[in-house]
Amino acid sequence: MEIVASLGKAMNKFNFKIIKPHNQSRLGKLSTAHGEIDTPVFMPVGTAATVKALKVEDIKASNSQIILANTYHLMLRPGEEVINLLGGVRKFMNWPGPILTDSGGFQVMSLGKLRSINEEGVTFKSQLDGSIFNLTPEKSVKIQCLLGSTITMCFDECTTWPSTFEDAKTSMELSMRWAQRSLDSYVERKGHAIFGIIQGSTYPELRQTSSKLLQDLNFPGYAIGGLAVGEGRDLMFKTLDSTVPTIDQSKPRYLMGVGKPEDIFGAVKRGIDMFDCVLPTRSGRNGQAFTSRGEVNIKNARHTKDPRPLDINCHCNTCNNYSRGYLHHLFKANEILGLILLSDHNINFYQSMMKQIRDAIKNENFETFSDSFLTKRSSGDIEEL
Amino acid sequence: MEIVASLGKAMNKFNFKIIKPHNQSRLGKLSTAHGEIDTPVFMPVGTAATVKALKVEDIKASNSQIILANTYHLMLRPGEEVINLLGGVRKFMNWPGPILTDSGGFQVMSLGKLRSINEEGVTFKSQLDGSIFNLTPEKSVKIQCLLGSTITMCFDECTTWPSTFEDAKTSMELSMRWAQRSLDSYVERKGHAIFGIIQGSTYPELRQTSSKLLQDLNFPGYAIGGLAVGEGRDLMFKTLDSTVPTIDQSKPRYLMGVGKPEDIFGAVKRGIDMFDCVLPTRSGRNGQAFTSRGEVNIKNARHTKDPRPLDINCHCNTCNNYSRGYLHHLFKANEILGLILLSDHNINFYQSMMKQIRDAIKNENFETFSDSFLTKRSSGDIEEL
Repeated sequence: MEIVASLGKAMNKFNFKIIKPHNQSRLGKLSTAHGEIDTPVFMPVGTAATVKALKVEDIKASNSQIILANTYHLMLRPGEEVINLLGGVRKFMNWPGPILTDSGGFQVMSLGKLRSINEEGVTFKSQLDGSIFNLTPEKSVKIQCLLGSTITMCFDECTTWPSTFEDAKTSMELSMRWAQRSLDSYVERKGHAIFGIIQGSTYPELRQTSSKLLQDLNFPGYAIGGLAVGEGRDLMFKTLDSTVPTIDQSKPRYLMGVGKPEDIFGAVKRGIDMFDCVLPTRSGRNGQAFTSRGEVNIKNARHTKDPRPLDINCHCNTCNNYSRGYLHHLFKANEILGLILLSDHNINFYQSMMKQIRDAIKNENFETFSDSFLTKRSSGDIEEL
Repeated sequence: MEIVASLGKAMNKFNFKIIKPHNQSRLGKLSTAHGEIDTPVFMPVGTAATVKALKVEDIKASNSQIILANTYHLMLRPGEEVINLLGGVRKFMNWPGPILTDSGGFQVMSLGKLRSINEEGVTFKSQLDGSIFNLTPEKSVKIQCLLGSTITMCFDECTTWPSTFEDAKTSMELSMRWAQRSLDSYVERKGHAIFGIIQGSTYPELRQTSSKLLQDLNFPGYAIGGLAVGEGRDLMFKTLDSTVPTIDQSKPRYLMGVGKPEDIFGAVKRGIDMFDCVLPTRSGRNGQAFTSRGEVNIKNARHTKDPRPLDINCHCNTCNNYSRGYLHHLFKANEILGLILLSDHNINFYQSMMKQIRDAIKNENFETFSDSFLTKRSSGDIEEL
């Protein structure tokens, strides 16, 4: 089992180095206290201190270099104090590499009527037992510190979509004041960092204002939040077109919650370095596999007797050892191993895609590679036997 | 990851060698077409061509040498023809070692009113969709052949408990006629075998008659069926006391569906060589862990902040890397990884126990080891922190 060489290797300084710019895209290396990260990078989501259905060994074998955990979920259960007592998220879940924690802002937005927001912060009801919690910038940053996060995210209000210009402006301005408070309460640690989150919905003017305000605070990295929330791919790309060029190009840029392979290609093209998304694991548990020829629903009866792997071009454990027929059987029989093998394949598909993206930037043929990858993806699944 | 050296190594002949007898216990080695098996052996149950929640790599790493699959479940879904088309159970599920298939007799008994039995065989309704299936000795043996089973079991009627002497006698006699028909329809293949199953409920006289009748047919191995079906440990041991000595001592003896660690020790003491049971995996999925100090319910709130492993004496991946606190969290959060890690631990606990049992027989101190192991098991879990 191949282990990422630098996983868990202690670095002194948080540092981002652009190894090779290529048009708007960049090949980079992020150094952290808990290991190095080759960018553009995809971060598997470990919501509740586990990447669902996968063992840490599987995550390592997929060459994942950093995973994401959720402040919101972990503060509710088991609670940041418990995790801190047990050594922080990394020790808790036995993950030696870097962790990025989101601040809870996105989940709080999703709660809708269960939450109320004011200048101080957010009060909300736990989805687990209805008990009342509150989050402020100070508290979110403190929780992320207790969790032992390598990269802390500012607490923000993730603006809902669609929003009027006025609502988006008010929301963004609140997030910018919270960014200042997040930064003020952040405790510097070697090789750790806090990222600012640019908001402003799909309004270029608001995005630019937000970007400028955050850069005045000189964060070590910048995220673009409030996208992939229903606005569609075209509007997301347009927003990136107007936002990314406003960000200091020496800093890592993280597009939160994105996304499908097609989204990632378009965002890398526009200069994004970091991604996270639940899609590969969630889809895997639903029987949907990502392949070089598009998505495959393994529950479909056409796979019953198919001896072929999910993707002949994939070299993951699932594709090396299991037929579509077997995977179909596991899903029909509600066997846990089906969820495991498909989640594992999907994470491997994503990480292999990211590796190819990095190689293409290195070789200065990203656009050609992107065209050929996406054309093949849209060609549809292999013929039924 | 340690891989059992002989797993999947082709052997020419089906052969059972007693390496060391020790009182009634025996250290042995079973050679099959698909690898060698050290006895006494525990066979994890892979009902639907997957040991629930575990990857084949996990099973190998636990030093399991043979697994069991179920004719009944596999004939219903995906069907023996599909599995045969996809290379047999072993290739289907990517397990290189030997497979033992039960004949369906036990599951058919469990169906109660959904089945009817006559001299020819059994007709039953599928638990999946209500469609009608039938099983006869000839059909069960043919299905097991299509599944590619290393060790085929005779089709029998697993006698319910309690049964009157007359009912148990009638049932046993039917099973004995079915054993002859099973053997007649079995196709010899190098390194493969078919085992007879001794029935007769808890009546020594019937067990002895059954044992004699089967031995007249000269099977390569003998199972004791119809136990661990509610009769209790004492009556099970008594039945073993009267049955085991009637079996040709040069042949492997398999006690079907057993059991708890305490059952296994008592049966090894009485000369049993092979075991299978769903307990380690089923308990694992229910949050119950087997430890050297008895069972632990990881869902219990006392484990919330506990940094200690399930069992300090266990060297499995789960105990090496995860705290009780983390495992507790995974179960409270309904995370699939909890099921994986506890199932994995339990299979490792069982296989480590079997290894210690074999070592104790080899060193002629099985009784002493048994006493100390079982005394410690009954001492109860470690104190709460």
